[in-house]
Amino acid sequence: MIKIGLDMMGGDFAPSEAVKGVASFLGSNSKAINLILIGDKDQINEELIQHNINQSAISIVHTSQTIEMQEHPTKALKEKQDSSIAVGFNLLASGEIDAFISAGNTGAMMVGALFSIKAIEGVIRPTIGAYIPREDGSLGLLVDVGLNADCKPENLNQFAILGSLFAEHILNIKTPKVGLVNIGEEEGKGNILAQAAYPLLKENNAINFIGNVEGRDILINKADVMVCEGFTGNVVLKMAESVYDIIKRRNIKDEHFNRFNFEAYGGVPVLGVCKPVIIGHGISTSIAFENMIKIAYKMIDTNLTEKITAKFSNI
Amino acid sequence: MIKIGLDMMGGDFAPSEAVKGVASFLGSNSKAINLILIGDKDQINEELIQHNINQSAISIVHTSQTIEMQEHPTKALKEKQDSSIAVGFNLLASGEIDAFISAGNTGAMMVGALFSIKAIEGVIRPTIGAYIPREDGSLGLLVDVGLNADCKPENLNQFAILGSLFAEHILNIKTPKVGLVNIGEEEGKGNILAQAAYPLLKENNAINFIGNVEGRDILINKADVMVCEGFTGNVVLKMAESVYDIIKRRNIKDEHFNRFNFEAYGGVPVLGVCKPVIIGHGISTSIAFENMIKIAYKMIDTNLTEKITAKFSNI
Repeated sequence: MIKIGLDMMGGDFAPSEAVKGVASFLGSNSKAINLILIGDKDQINEELIQHNINQSAISIVHTSQTIEMQEHPTKALKEKQDSSIAVGFNLLASGEIDAFISAGNTGAMMVGALFSIKAIEGVIRPTIGAYIPREDGSLGLLVDVGLNADCKPENLNQFAILGSLFAEHILNIKTPKVGLVNIGEEEGKGNILAQAAYPLLKENNAINFIGNVEGRDILINKADVMVCEGFTGNVVLKMAESVYDIIKRRNIKDEHFNRFNFEAYGGVPVLGVCKPVIIGHGISTSIAFENMIKIAYKMIDTNLTEKITAKFSNI
Repeated sequence: MIKIGLDMMGGDFAPSEAVKGVASFLGSNSKAINLILIGDKDQINEELIQHNINQSAISIVHTSQTIEMQEHPTKALKEKQDSSIAVGFNLLASGEIDAFISAGNTGAMMVGALFSIKAIEGVIRPTIGAYIPREDGSLGLLVDVGLNADCKPENLNQFAILGSLFAEHILNIKTPKVGLVNIGEEEGKGNILAQAAYPLLKENNAINFIGNVEGRDILINKADVMVCEGFTGNVVLKMAESVYDIIKRRNIKDEHFNRFNFEAYGGVPVLGVCKPVIIGHGISTSIAFENMIKIAYKMIDTNLTEKITAKFSNI
C-alpha cells in the first residue's frame, strides 16, 4: 500500500483546499493508496465531515503546531518539532510515509528536504524543477528554480540528469532534449558558469544534450529540460507566473496562457533526494493539491527515486 | 549642430528600413541635426532618391565593407577597418559625430563601445539597459541585459547609478526607484552576488534604492530601474520578447502586450561610455531607427554623458 503524507496546515487556504483536493483525488482514484493527513485533527475532521469524505483510505496524524509562511525556515523547523512539516519529514525519514507534500513555508520544505532526508548517493545538490507550459500543450521542465542560487558546473550537469529522468518517467517524454539556459546560441557563449557547464553537458552520455537555449526559447519546446542555476531559474519562473496575472487582469481569454496558471500544476518536485517531496504554492487550490497527490503517486509508482539512484551509481 | 551617425548597413533590412527611419525622423524634426549616414553610398543614394528625402540635413560617409550578423565581433572589427561599424566608432572617437547608432552585429557594437571609445572615468564596466513596458503605459529600465555576463557587486551598484540617470533624464522619471533583481523580498536573500550587492545599493546616496524585486515584479512598476548581472537580464529580456511573439502568434489583441514589441523601442543604450551609443535589434524596422535617432538626440540634448561624468567624479 502506497502511503502519501499531506501537510494539511500548509498554504493560504488550509486545511479547506487541501481537504477538497483529497476529496477530488479519492473521488477519481481506484488505486491502493493511503493518504496520511498531517495537521490539527479537529480542524481536519470538521472539514472531512463537511465534504462527506470516505475515510477508509485516510489516516490522520495529529500535530499541534504550524509553521507560518513568514517564519524563518531553519529556526521554525527546529523549534516547532510538532509542526505538520517537521512531523511530515520525520514520517518520511522513518518510512511511515512514501512521499510528502506541503504547500506550507517553502523555505522550511527546502530545509526539510535537504536535511531531514538524505540526498541520493552521488547527488551533490538536490534541486527543484518547475513545469513550463508550451504552446503544443506539452510541458517542459526548468531546473533549478530556486533551491540552489549559486551553482558549480557539475551541479548543472547533475540537474540535467535529474530533470531528464523526471521528464522521461513523470512527463512521459522519451529521450528528453536537454538545453543549457544561456545568453547565446553557440558553444563558448555565456557567463563563466555556463561556459564551464557546456562541455560537461556535451560529454554527458546520460542525457540528450542539444546545446544552449536562450530566453526566447524557454516558452517554446526547443528543449524539454532546461538547466540553469536557481537564481536565473527562479526569476524566470516568477516572471512567467506574473504573465498569467497580467493576462487575467487584462481579461484576455486564451487557452495557452491559461496554462501559465502555475497553481494548477500543484507544486514542484524536489529531485535528487531519497524520497519524493513536493513543494506546493502557498496559494494552492484543491486542484493543486489533487495534482500534487497524483504526481507523488506517479513518482512512487514509476520508481523514480530508484531509477535516479541506479543512474547515479553508474556515473 | 548635433551630428548623429547611423550605420546604414546594419540590420536585416539594410539599408531600406534605416533610410525609411531617417525619412520619418526628418519629416517630423525641426531641430538642428545633421544625420551622418555611414555605408555604401550607391545603395544609400538609391534609397534616398526612392524615398524622396531632403538631403540638406544629411551627409553620407562611404564605407566599402559590412560586418555580417554572424561574424566574430573582435575579428571582424579588426579585419574590416572600412566597415560601417568600424568607421562609425572612429568618427565617434574623433568627435566627428556626437552619437552612433547601429542595428548591426551586436557583438561588434559592444566591442566597439567598450574599446573604440572610452569608459567614463570611474565607471568600471559600461552596461546596456533595456526598456520594460509596464501596464500603466510607462517604461522601466532593466540593466544589464547582456554586456556583462559576470559581475561583481560594485558593478551592479554602478549600473544602478547609470540606470537612474538614464531613467531620470531620458525616461523623465523623477527620483527613479531602484530595485535589485533577486529571488526573495528580504535583505539577505539571493545568490552570493545579490547578497553582497544589497548593502552597497542600500548605502548608495546617489540612488533611490527600494530593495529587492522578484521575477514577478519585473513587469509591473514596483521599481523603475531594475539591476542585475547581464546573464539573468538577458534571459529575462529575451523571454519578455518571446511573450510578444506568442501573443502575436495566438492572435491576441491587447494594447499592453503590443508594447512588448521591443523592436519599436529602437535599441538599447550603452551607458557609462563617454559618447552615446545605441545598439539596435537586427530586425529593426523604420520605427525602430526613428526612435533610436530620437533617443540619441535626447541623450545629447540632455547632456546625459556629462551628467554621468559629474556624478562619477563625486563618488
